[in-house]
Amino acid sequence: MITGKNYIGNQLSAKGNNTYKTFNPQTNTENSSVFTEATSEEINLATELATSAFQSYSKKSGKEKALFLRTIADEIENLGDELLHVYTSESGLPAGRAMGERGRTLGQLRAFAAHVEEGSWVDATIDTAQPERQPIPKVDLRKMNVPLGPIVVFGASNFPLAFSTAGGDTAAALAAGCSVIVKSHPMHAGTGELVASAVIKAAEKTGMPNGVFSNLNSSGIEVGQQLVKHPQVKGVGFTGSIRGGRALFDLAAQRDEPIPVFAEMGSINPVVFLPEALHEGAESWAKTYAGSITLGSGQFCTNPGLLLGIKGERLNDFAQTLAEEIVKVEPSCMLHPNIVGAYNSNKSKAVSQEGLEVLADFKGDSKTNYGRQIVSKVEGKTFLNNPTLHHEVFGPFSLLVECEDKTQLEQILNKLEGQLTGTIVATDSELTLNSEIVSALQNRVGRIIFNGVPTGVEVCPSMQHGGPYPASTDSRFTAVGVDSIKRWVRPFSFQSWPNSLLPNELKNENPLKILRNINGNKTTDKI
Amino acid sequence: MITGKNYIGNQLSAKGNNTYKTFNPQTNTENSSVFTEATSEEINLATELATSAFQSYSKKSGKEKALFLRTIADEIENLGDELLHVYTSESGLPAGRAMGERGRTLGQLRAFAAHVEEGSWVDATIDTAQPERQPIPKVDLRKMNVPLGPIVVFGASNFPLAFSTAGGDTAAALAAGCSVIVKSHPMHAGTGELVASAVIKAAEKTGMPNGVFSNLNSSGIEVGQQLVKHPQVKGVGFTGSIRGGRALFDLAAQRDEPIPVFAEMGSINPVVFLPEALHEGAESWAKTYAGSITLGSGQFCTNPGLLLGIKGERLNDFAQTLAEEIVKVEPSCMLHPNIVGAYNSNKSKAVSQEGLEVLADFKGDSKTNYGRQIVSKVEGKTFLNNPTLHHEVFGPFSLLVECEDKTQLEQILNKLEGQLTGTIVATDSELTLNSEIVSALQNRVGRIIFNGVPTGVEVCPSMQHGGPYPASTDSRFTAVGVDSIKRWVRPFSFQSWPNSLLPNELKNENPLKILRNINGNKTTDKI
Repeated sequence: MITGKNYIGNQLSAKGNNTYKTFNPQTNTENSSVFTEATSEEINLATELATSAFQSYSKKSGKEKALFLRTIADEIENLGDELLHVYTSESGLPAGRAMGERGRTLGQLRAFAAHVEEGSWVDATIDTAQPERQPIPKVDLRKMNVPLGPIVVFGASNFPLAFSTAGGDTAAALAAGCSVIVKSHPMHAGTGELVASAVIKAAEKTGMPNGVFSNLNSSGIEVGQQLVKHPQVKGVGFTGSIRGGRALFDLAAQRDEPIPVFAEMGSINPVVFLPEALHEGAESWAKTYAGSITLGSGQFCTNPGLLLGIKGERLNDFAQTLAEEIVKVEPSCMLHPNIVGAYNSNKSKAVSQEGLEVLADFKGDSKTNYGRQIVSKVEGKTFLNNPTLHHEVFGPFSLLVECEDKTQLEQILNKLEGQLTGTIVATDSELTLNSEIVSALQNRVGRIIFNGVPTGVEVCPSMQHGGPYPASTDSRFTAVGVDSIKRWVRPFSFQSWPNSLLPNELKNENPLKILRNINGNKTTDKI
Repeated sequence: MITGKNYIGNQLSAKGNNTYKTFNPQTNTENSSVFTEATSEEINLATELATSAFQSYSKKSGKEKALFLRTIADEIENLGDELLHVYTSESGLPAGRAMGERGRTLGQLRAFAAHVEEGSWVDATIDTAQPERQPIPKVDLRKMNVPLGPIVVFGASNFPLAFSTAGGDTAAALAAGCSVIVKSHPMHAGTGELVASAVIKAAEKTGMPNGVFSNLNSSGIEVGQQLVKHPQVKGVGFTGSIRGGRALFDLAAQRDEPIPVFAEMGSINPVVFLPEALHEGAESWAKTYAGSITLGSGQFCTNPGLLLGIKGERLNDFAQTLAEEIVKVEPSCMLHPNIVGAYNSNKSKAVSQEGLEVLADFKGDSKTNYGRQIVSKVEGKTFLNNPTLHHEVFGPFSLLVECEDKTQLEQILNKLEGQLTGTIVATDSELTLNSEIVSALQNRVGRIIFNGVPTGVEVCPSMQHGGPYPASTDSRFTAVGVDSIKRWVRPFSFQSWPNSLLPNELKNENPLKILRNINGNKTTDKI
């Protein structure tokens, strides 16, 4: 049952006077639950609890944290159909997506559980003492990753489960040994509260300290600002707009003690189509991209918002088929009237730019809050000189840039802002012969794709989800996959520490049987 | 021979009008060479060259980079006695230290050479395709670390070789595949130019692109500011004061595209003395610390500036012996009259604080520019309430805090700013019984030491040199040891990429025979 209250540690609490409701974009009506914003006092209490919980939670073993994470997954499953129902009513997303995203969320939690249970992720590195070394003895030094402290996670609008309350950021931070305070996303506060109740239940069942997790409601920006400025908060995870992410980054950088903000923000995910590949498959690629551009109403961070090709008949064929195919797709519901509004206004702004030619614009019937797809075309030179066209239009929108030649294409790639992904559609020989284009694209992105689509982010260790700014605020980390745990830890060295008091990861006996670097060799051996 | 010019890539250049000289603090006279500050035009040219050099240098193999790094080390050795002579004349440090630091610098360059030649450091992670997977096929994904781009390195005043021109930051960035622009430290511009000439010679000998390295003279802050603001610069390494490091951090955070600044800054390196340990060895610990506090005239970032103990006879014994022993140490020359001046003024400010009692103050004869050691004492309560006493006094200074009891000691530890190191002097049973004190200390530091001194930073993989702010701007990385290469790279994923066009690190055949993570297993096997 949804109470509309905050979880301040294990306690439901609603001391504030500001309330709000969520909205069902499918029915175009408000949902009934009333949510109460966290007060300044509640925020401070959550942070105090998170700080004291961190003292004991940070010392939990990998096994204990794994049990907690798996129990969270089980408790989310136990929410059953109520969760799916609230999810769809707060997002307008279909039931199939709700189930798929729940599966992904459970998979993430269980993957982190396995990762910390196995334990080698701490990168244990040991150099043993050499008391006889000349001119000075060498001391015994042992290093491993330790958690940063309380982390604040901002839920994403477009992933009410997988990148929100118990999504990737939260799972990674809890796995690392950090306590977590979630700033719930106002568009799906009910989904958030249900998932939070599952986390709290799991924390109680597995004996985790009160304050290891809190969930704060907020419809504005003040709660988030207060959290990011709080001296006890040691890191921030965010998925959303460039404006929102940058504002948090700036706040965190201006603190007396700056803290890392890992914000995954905007991306237009450029796709380069080379001529031979289009010669072989213009029609098939056009159909594939009509699907990718409209997938989930274009509300994925890897949506292909920029298509680049070389002027000519083959590109014309591609453009024509794409235009024909994309209007055949039935529009689908967007997440919220505000998002539909922003989409329509950004789309209008983009297509009103000089030199833009609309190739396809869905004119059929569609319901309120549905995103109507549009594809337009512009010459390379015009694109180069108009920064507005480089901005993301969040929704089923894509812009085809007709480049004069490969030189101009390379010039455009070099001028792009940082991106999550870059895709190249080419024959094998085109890929080999155009290393400058590939290289220019590589410099701007975190993941490069050959003959595919950028949508679809596999959750696995080899995934890099994050790229040069503004795709993310720190390209040195990923937001997806078990390596995202690295955002929430710091290396820590013990010098000449008694073996019995070392963490198990660093003891001579290697009781956890993890892979360690000992005097330069990777081994699971004892010392 | 020292020309006083800048290295803009491989070219000596001195287009500016601002000149300066270095200073010999031992003789208290200026050195003869005249250095010309880099102009805005020269800075831009160095950055352009670094950007174009990055395109080819970033693709060099581990073997090629290793040869470059080893040749740099050889060329520094070839500078012979001239380097040692210039080093001592610009730093006031003794010849033994010059030789030791040169050895450390060569060792660092060669350690990074071995690290990138072996090659496993790129953390190659591969998940192979599963075309038959339901409900959707799994794509082939392969991830590895790639270099960030041109890096700016600011030389440190207190390590003219090991943390300057071709010191740890430069070696790590070049090893990662980044081009480097050094902002030479004005106090040892001649040492810097000699080392730069060795790097340039090595770059030419090993066929590295022009611009892979530049060395810019500057006596003020403008050259550094322009470099950090330059859009083509992708990262910054700095060792120095909190004020300097924070200013660069702020500049970098305010850029359109923020970039990481890795600044290793101030630290007072708290040392906790527990009663039983003092009971057993007050005298011996006092003698050891008299040495550690005055080592190198207190000009090490790990200098023990804060000693903490519990009020009582044992602490009195320790304090008395420390006071007696420390005045027996002969003062030594500090790096520069400005540093002596800052030391004297910070020392006066500290000892003039209310409640401070001077225990020992060297009153004997000493030369101009020599640092005269001082140790004072204060009560825990006074220390807690006076933030001035928490600030670093760079030089042979230490403050002993007499705590009422363990509760107050813990309270003080919790209130300290972030530190590079924390040390605990205790018996084994004291260490076991005082886990709250250990835990409080751990939360504030990057390295914790049992029964030792913080001075002496072993260059090895298990060293963490960096701690919570303001010890460093990003506690998630180390400034010492081969893992410092991680500051200058980002993970990058290839999706469905043809095997023959993948970097060698990710090819099926594993031609480099590196350790990789393949479908969740660490192995050197082929696929």
